[in-house]
Amino acid sequence: MGVNEERPDKKTSGAARRKRRKAAQRHAPGTSPGTITVSASAQRPVIEAIAFGPGEYAKHQGLSPEAAHALVGTHPVVWINVTGLGDAKIIEQVGDLFRLHRLALEDAVHTHQRPKIEEYPDRLFIVFRAPEPPERGAAPAPEPGQVGTEQIAMFLGPGFVLTFQEGHADCFEPVRVRARGGKGRMRNQGPDYLAYALLDAATDAFFPVLDSMRDRIDAIEQDIHAHAPKDAIARIYEIRHDLANLRRAIWPLRDVLNALVRDPSTLIGPEARVFLRDCYDHTAQLMDLVEGCRDSTSGLMDLHLGMASARMNEVMKVLTVIATLFMPLTFIVGVYGMNFDRASPLNMPELGWSYGYLFALGLCAISTLILFIYFRRKGWLGGR
Amino acid sequence: MGVNEERPDKKTSGAARRKRRKAAQRHAPGTSPGTITVSASAQRPVIEAIAFGPGEYAKHQGLSPEAAHALVGTHPVVWINVTGLGDAKIIEQVGDLFRLHRLALEDAVHTHQRPKIEEYPDRLFIVFRAPEPPERGAAPAPEPGQVGTEQIAMFLGPGFVLTFQEGHADCFEPVRVRARGGKGRMRNQGPDYLAYALLDAATDAFFPVLDSMRDRIDAIEQDIHAHAPKDAIARIYEIRHDLANLRRAIWPLRDVLNALVRDPSTLIGPEARVFLRDCYDHTAQLMDLVEGCRDSTSGLMDLHLGMASARMNEVMKVLTVIATLFMPLTFIVGVYGMNFDRASPLNMPELGWSYGYLFALGLCAISTLILFIYFRRKGWLGGR
Amino acid sequence: MGVNEERPDKKTSGAARRKRRKAAQRHAPGTSPGTITVSASAQRPVIEAIAFGPGEYAKHQGLSPEAAHALVGTHPVVWINVTGLGDAKIIEQVGDLFRLHRLALEDAVHTHQRPKIEEYPDRLFIVFRAPEPPERGAAPAPEPGQVGTEQIAMFLGPGFVLTFQEGHADCFEPVRVRARGGKGRMRNQGPDYLAYALLDAATDAFFPVLDSMRDRIDAIEQDIHAHAPKDAIARIYEIRHDLANLRRAIWPLRDVLNALVRDPSTLIGPEARVFLRDCYDHTAQLMDLVEGCRDSTSGLMDLHLGMASARMNEVMKVLTVIATLFMPLTFIVGVYGMNFDRASPLNMPELGWSYGYLFALGLCAISTLILFIYFRRKGWLGGR
Amino acid sequence: MGVNEERPDKKTSGAARRKRRKAAQRHAPGTSPGTITVSASAQRPVIEAIAFGPGEYAKHQGLSPEAAHALVGTHPVVWINVTGLGDAKIIEQVGDLFRLHRLALEDAVHTHQRPKIEEYPDRLFIVFRAPEPPERGAAPAPEPGQVGTEQIAMFLGPGFVLTFQEGHADCFEPVRVRARGGKGRMRNQGPDYLAYALLDAATDAFFPVLDSMRDRIDAIEQDIHAHAPKDAIARIYEIRHDLANLRRAIWPLRDVLNALVRDPSTLIGPEARVFLRDCYDHTAQLMDLVEGCRDSTSGLMDLHLGMASARMNEVMKVLTVIATLFMPLTFIVGVYGMNFDRASPLNMPELGWSYGYLFALGLCAISTLILFIYFRRKGWLGGR
Amino acid sequence: MGVNEERPDKKTSGAARRKRRKAAQRHAPGTSPGTITVSASAQRPVIEAIAFGPGEYAKHQGLSPEAAHALVGTHPVVWINVTGLGDAKIIEQVGDLFRLHRLALEDAVHTHQRPKIEEYPDRLFIVFRAPEPPERGAAPAPEPGQVGTEQIAMFLGPGFVLTFQEGHADCFEPVRVRARGGKGRMRNQGPDYLAYALLDAATDAFFPVLDSMRDRIDAIEQDIHAHAPKDAIARIYEIRHDLANLRRAIWPLRDVLNALVRDPSTLIGPEARVFLRDCYDHTAQLMDLVEGCRDSTSGLMDLHLGMASARMNEVMKVLTVIATLFMPLTFIVGVYGMNFDRASPLNMPELGWSYGYLFALGLCAISTLILFIYFRRKGWLGGR
Repeated sequence: MGVNEERPDKKTSGAARRKRRKAAQRHAPGTSPGTITVSASAQRPVIEAIAFGPGEYAKHQGLSPEAAHALVGTHPVVWINVTGLGDAKIIEQVGDLFRLHRLALEDAVHTHQRPKIEEYPDRLFIVFRAPEPPERGAAPAPEPGQVGTEQIAMFLGPGFVLTFQEGHADCFEPVRVRARGGKGRMRNQGPDYLAYALLDAATDAFFPVLDSMRDRIDAIEQDIHAHAPKDAIARIYEIRHDLANLRRAIWPLRDVLNALVRDPSTLIGPEARVFLRDCYDHTAQLMDLVEGCRDSTSGLMDLHLGMASARMNEVMKVLTVIATLFMPLTFIVGVYGMNFDRASPLNMPELGWSYGYLFALGLCAISTLILFIYFRRKGWLGGR
Repeated sequence: MGVNEERPDKKTSGAARRKRRKAAQRHAPGTSPGTITVSASAQRPVIEAIAFGPGEYAKHQGLSPEAAHALVGTHPVVWINVTGLGDAKIIEQVGDLFRLHRLALEDAVHTHQRPKIEEYPDRLFIVFRAPEPPERGAAPAPEPGQVGTEQIAMFLGPGFVLTFQEGHADCFEPVRVRARGGKGRMRNQGPDYLAYALLDAATDAFFPVLDSMRDRIDAIEQDIHAHAPKDAIARIYEIRHDLANLRRAIWPLRDVLNALVRDPSTLIGPEARVFLRDCYDHTAQLMDLVEGCRDSTSGLMDLHLGMASARMNEVMKVLTVIATLFMPLTFIVGVYGMNFDRASPLNMPELGWSYGYLFALGLCAISTLILFIYFRRKGWLGGR
Repeated sequence: MGVNEERPDKKTSGAARRKRRKAAQRHAPGTSPGTITVSASAQRPVIEAIAFGPGEYAKHQGLSPEAAHALVGTHPVVWINVTGLGDAKIIEQVGDLFRLHRLALEDAVHTHQRPKIEEYPDRLFIVFRAPEPPERGAAPAPEPGQVGTEQIAMFLGPGFVLTFQEGHADCFEPVRVRARGGKGRMRNQGPDYLAYALLDAATDAFFPVLDSMRDRIDAIEQDIHAHAPKDAIARIYEIRHDLANLRRAIWPLRDVLNALVRDPSTLIGPEARVFLRDCYDHTAQLMDLVEGCRDSTSGLMDLHLGMASARMNEVMKVLTVIATLFMPLTFIVGVYGMNFDRASPLNMPELGWSYGYLFALGLCAISTLILFIYFRRKGWLGGR
Repeated sequence: MGVNEERPDKKTSGAARRKRRKAAQRHAPGTSPGTITVSASAQRPVIEAIAFGPGEYAKHQGLSPEAAHALVGTHPVVWINVTGLGDAKIIEQVGDLFRLHRLALEDAVHTHQRPKIEEYPDRLFIVFRAPEPPERGAAPAPEPGQVGTEQIAMFLGPGFVLTFQEGHADCFEPVRVRARGGKGRMRNQGPDYLAYALLDAATDAFFPVLDSMRDRIDAIEQDIHAHAPKDAIARIYEIRHDLANLRRAIWPLRDVLNALVRDPSTLIGPEARVFLRDCYDHTAQLMDLVEGCRDSTSGLMDLHLGMASARMNEVMKVLTVIATLFMPLTFIVGVYGMNFDRASPLNMPELGWSYGYLFALGLCAISTLILFIYFRRKGWLGGR
Repeated sequence: MGVNEERPDKKTSGAARRKRRKAAQRHAPGTSPGTITVSASAQRPVIEAIAFGPGEYAKHQGLSPEAAHALVGTHPVVWINVTGLGDAKIIEQVGDLFRLHRLALEDAVHTHQRPKIEEYPDRLFIVFRAPEPPERGAAPAPEPGQVGTEQIAMFLGPGFVLTFQEGHADCFEPVRVRARGGKGRMRNQGPDYLAYALLDAATDAFFPVLDSMRDRIDAIEQDIHAHAPKDAIARIYEIRHDLANLRRAIWPLRDVLNALVRDPSTLIGPEARVFLRDCYDHTAQLMDLVEGCRDSTSGLMDLHLGMASARMNEVMKVLTVIATLFMPLTFIVGVYGMNFDRASPLNMPELGWSYGYLFALGLCAISTLILFIYFRRKGWLGGR
């Protein structure tokens, strides 16, 4: 049945979740702080760079750490993007060239960080999360347990933005397009605006995710109204789990953006600040959506349990009505099935009456009638 | 039945909600910030203006952006109202003429904002929400799922107030009447007072909405006391949903008004500030009402579940009492229906007794009596 | 039955609540701010004044607004009390004579305000709420749904205190007695002490109300222990409703008193401040009591549901035990009621046995015994 | 049964609670502030004093107010303890001699205060609560509803500490012993250290109370695992009630101690401050324990309800399985009990078959088997 | 069965918990503050020291207090570790030699403290908790109720770090290894870095504990999906208990680390501060994990109850369907089992019909068919 066919999927998604969690495992407790340990299953790092300015644009792919570092200063803004965290040596090389603090570099590699901002001399270190892109070829229908988030670590320094990603977060694609296209503000602004654009792209990418969450919630609501689906609770549980994931990604991001807007570091210009305030507003809206979804799920849970219990009550009433109607009847016909010796005139004289059978059937009818009236007055028949 | 007839309505309202949500959809993630994208289904913008001063009053309709901008300065206060957000070009023209920040203009057009206030040089940008007017010809009875809110974006500058609305929010009608009538304070005050008057009108428009929420809650309470309505939970769920909507509109409005009262921008005079404090008090009252309604809905849920479960228990008791009364009887008459060979004197001698039948019936009566006393002592009969 | 007799009362009280709410209805949305609109059902205003000082005391009743205003200055402290808010003209006259801000006057007349304090030049405007006095001839027993609150608006100015009340809040009677008696501090203090005394009287009047709430809670607890009353949930719901009302009246009063103690306006002297701090402590105690009652009601709900469900389980167990005991018996006697042709030796030879009847009864006894042991091991019989 | 024997106790404890509450009743609303009203049932005050210094120690009992006041100054530290609050005159005399504010004195006598601290010129007024000592001869086993708290009012002035207690709080005994013994710091410190010692003694006295709460919780947990006790919910409810009481006593005490540590009054020396910080830590630990217990009680409630419902489900399953097994059997044997005229060859030919009886029994066996397999596949038999 | 076998374990773990709690019992209330009382069951203290600097490293074991104190100053950093708190005299000796405040020393010995930080002149006193190491030989599978925490008291002074532990917390082993190995930063830093390293090691040790909590939660989730395990609630209850324990250890640790990062004491250098900020981030992550687990447990509870209730409903439906199908059948065959005198033509003529038997069976079939259709329309058969 459909219900049973969904179960394995859910288990699979649960198992996938667990596997993913294991992959993001921390280094062993007690390791010296600042140690860069990479997970065996991580992608090998690929370095690409986009360098642009008011009238200039250049794109480089497959760079070495040194080549990437050499680019800084050649254009007003250089964005170096490291995709894949599977080689500790290359990562360390990048860290040394760009003078990144070891603790920050360690956090960039361990992809289980909560969004945060840390100021280092001449460097701003921002960790944030973007929704995981749906896998290629995945069904377009919203599927439970599909909402993961991916860590992005961003270093903002004078003239450059350096980002580290686990995989290829396609939420940055529009930023690349805008930088290449040359339309809009981006070409004329500094690296602070680029940092904003990346943060904003990651933030905006959460909106469709939350819309699909809302669709899933609406679908469950409709199902609950139509019939009491057995898997409603499990589906609500999955949604809550996903919402908790999103919340964990978005809530601290608000603090990060608030810190960026308020705490005046010279790396962020006044103009970028206005845009960051707008991005902060977006996270507030996202949180409203997340909270709204959470509220809806608790409402749904109540709705489902209430509907299920109402259906249950109906079942019980039917049982009670039928059992109660037939029990006296069974008793009456049982009486006239007794084998008492008819020799004694006191022993079941009814059996000898000409209208005895009709009398017995009449007793049954009267008993049924009385109970029917009783139930009607109780209001148990209206509900059927 | 009534219950089933309500169901389709609810689905419709749910579908309407979803459609509305889709209409208010954001632009695609990654679009350049400040891009004005309009939804295809939005009304075409219509610009009207009211200009007034201590002794003067003029009303203009169907203005072009340029004509509207030219009005500023001709009277002490000019209120330009743009209804309908369906033409990006006109909106952009207005934005350029009035020197509005692109991010603010973008927010004015995307009608999913939460209430907020933003200060720009010489401009104050306020987004707030008013309750959606009930549709024409709608039944006067409170209907579930009818509570939506509409975004209003307001720019306050020297000598003018500029508002953008999705549709024609009739909550502004009294302000127009007061401006035209010339009674009261409005004519003698600056644009800050007009801004207050608009905010106050939107705030006050929530009171009747909350009164009708309260009526819906009272109606459910009465229904629950009278009979356990099957759709009580669904109706409570709808109310909660509506309350969440209202809360989302009112709660941030409080912060906006508080910011207006405290944060001293030169655009707001000291006199308007006193009035804004009063308006702030109104939002506090609104929140009290919303919270009160929320509390009531959880109370109602408990009440309903408790009543339903009490009714269920009663059903179960009746079943138990009747089943328990008749089971021994059925057994007794079953015994005397057995066909044992009466040749043996040990085999069912009762069947041969003269008073055998009465003996059997007596057994039944005694068994019933004993169980009756047992139930009475258990207190199960008092409850019927 | 008692339970059913309570129901109509409750509905009445609910209806009364609704009516009261309607009476306190706001003016139409969009009315010009500061408009004094009175409800048709409100009492006509009656003005009385008490003027006193260290050695002096005078009482005036049925004053005109002018006469009341003329009293100010004739004695160190003048307390003008306006009871009834049913005449907009008189209220406006009082407001003009005492130079009260129109917004404050509007709030004094609209009796749905939450407690608040507002500073105007040379005037302190305080709104607070006192418990509604129980109606005359009302039963002394605590009755559900009887807890309402009444708004009191107080203006404190140099040399006078001006209060507006809906009806005659008898919580002020002790203050009048103390002023007349001349004992205690009151005569020797300024209007700030009088304001304190009025606030304190209103605050203290909540203590007996909360004691009666607690009595109602205790009564429900006892009822739940004694028998599972059907109306327990409805009664708890009523208490919660009343507690929410009280909370709405007391919670903001705390903030008002805190503001009075901290925010130093010259209208409040240092000595009165010490007393106001004491009054603030009382509101803290009241909130503790309210919260305690709220906690108790949730506990009661759990207790009631738990007890009801325990009773339900017991009912189910009895049903199960009896049904399970008799079903095999009915089967056994059914077997020997079959009419198989005894010609075949294989067909029911038991019927021909000399001890066949005893054998059948023995089968019944053994089956009962086995099930009895089974139930005992399950522990289902201990619970009976 | 044990369960039923506990019920009256609980009622008694509830009644005791109510009586206690009545005894601590406030003076009538509207009484002049600062009025000392004593409850008729209160103990008559007994004044005792302990005076000590680095090498000196004196103890006085049964003092008059004047004699007690005269002691101040004769030794570095004088502790005057007034036990019993049943004589307004003596209390007022003490208050006048020691120059205590009337409001503070009133609070000292009304034993329903929440812990608080108030500064008066040259006097520090601290109200706190100690656990009520268990009654003499009370059973050592933890009993429900036994946790009350007792108010202690303390005035700290130069050279003296003055305490008012309802009864004889034996939590101060160790302080007396330490003062008499002369070991430890106490003799060499000022009255601020004595005040700390008293606060600390009262705070420490809560630890065993909370340990016994935890024991009660553990006992309930064990009972719930062993069998579903009927009174579990009532016991949890009692514990919650007691925890709320403790919380009310401990939570504001934290604020008092925090205020003492931070707010620098010259009456508290820097050394005592270090000790008060330690005492503050203890209240933090107490609150952790209280919160832990609260969490446990909600967990217990879930556990109990879950276990009860699991047991209920099991009962229902057994009923269903047995009813379902026997219903077809009863039908089958009913069929062959019909009295159709065997003259017609179509009427019940089975009755004439040689193996008819075995055939019928076989039908029964097959029906049982089929249902058995069905139940096994449903997994309903594994749970038994 | 497996379920029953787990029960004793749980009781044992509960008992172990209780015993552990007793062992950590406080000294008697009223004891003089600063008294060092040791529990009889505590390990005897063993003092070991590690002294190191840029190029030097020395390890000493089984030191006397004097010898340990003499080490301070011989190397840049000396770490003295006291394992076991079972001898008051040695502890006091250590305290006197290192000039530790008696209150701090008392807290170091009483192993029930919540994490805290206290500043004393020239000494920083930090209490924190590490997860208890699993007992040797314990099963590798996650077992309920195994999560305890162990107190570590740390004094940081110029040139030394002094730690007190109950047992041998092996979470410090990696720190020892790093100090001995000479790689990494540790050798070149002061005692502030060592203090950080110890705090970080304790913090990091919580990550695997929380991973195993998550595994336990996942295991329960899978079990709930597979079958409704009877002990699910008890297991969730245990997890909640463990989470509350962890929360109590981690939450105040955040405040401690925050205080260390912000509150500038000269004992902490700027470089260590950066590392402490990283450690603070780890506690934030831990709290996220704890809260995530807590959320999951409530979700699990809902899931389990929902699944159990869904299964229950299914059971009830089956019962209802079968009972309702067979009751009319039993009635019909009962009718034709009656013994009415066939002499009267009105008495059961059907018995004489040639097709009477088939007629009766037909009645049964029709009744079954009608009910079948009824159930199908109710949708009760789809759920099976």
